[in-house]
Amino acid sequence: MTTQSTYAEPDRKLVTDAITFDRDGLVAAVAQQHDTGEVLMVAWMNREAVEKTLSTGMVHYWSRSRAKLWRKGEESGHTQSLVDFRVDCDGDTVLLLVDQAGVACHTGRHNCFFNAVRDGKLTQIAPVVVDPARMYRK
Amino acid sequence: MTTQSTYAEPDRKLVTDAITFDRDGLVAAVAQQHDTGEVLMVAWMNREAVEKTLSTGMVHYWSRSRAKLWRKGEESGHTQSLVDFRVDCDGDTVLLLVDQAGVACHTGRHNCFFNAVRDGKLTQIAPVVVDPARMYRK
Repeated sequence: MTTQSTYAEPDRKLVTDAITFDRDGLVAAVAQQHDTGEVLMVAWMNREAVEKTLSTGMVHYWSRSRAKLWRKGEESGHTQSLVDFRVDCDGDTVLLLVDQAGVACHTGRHNCFFNAVRDGKLTQIAPVVVDPARMYRK
Repeated sequence: MTTQSTYAEPDRKLVTDAITFDRDGLVAAVAQQHDTGEVLMVAWMNREAVEKTLSTGMVHYWSRSRAKLWRKGEESGHTQSLVDFRVDCDGDTVLLLVDQAGVACHTGRHNCFFNAVRDGKLTQIAPVVVDPARMYRK
């Protein structure tokens, strides 16, 4: 099965018209592994990130900290291929069904939501599966 | 199995200390059905919403449009019981594992992410399962 989904221009317009971007021109995006349901991460997209994601089938985000467009995995190789693009009821958040290559989290964990309270401690409940030093070396 | 999880004050502090609230004092929260993996909705929480959620075991959000604290299901009865509260790697988004009573979406659909492109049309891919007029009548 192919898991990369690209959208022609008329379809891209349907999606972008359905999104209400916030005052910074951003929309919150949840990335979910399409076949397991694992919530991988939440990041932000601007209109260009949505356009690039839909036209290439590879997920792009807007980095608020670096103030730049960012193709997920461009440094680490841990890309996200788009499977389906969903817009919520009031158009202010989106859900990306993706196929994650490698790991989603820059810490080397499979997803970003690994902090939880256990036995009175904030605990990292998921293991590091890829050495971050290996993910980002050039 | 009980699916309502309440947190004592020291544990609540561990969670709130791990969250970086944005300039509006908010954090994006993804609600996911704990046993099926379904992403139900994304909404926003302020510190009080986090506190109330952790102390009561019932999910509370901050309504940006109404500028008020809101217990999910307070009008509709379609509440979310907290199962686990996760904080992401950089503390700026949270994942709520919940047990959803009824439906999560104010449109009467089970989740809010029902808009997708199908055959050149923006299509509602999930059915209305509860009449919204019945959800919100007093």
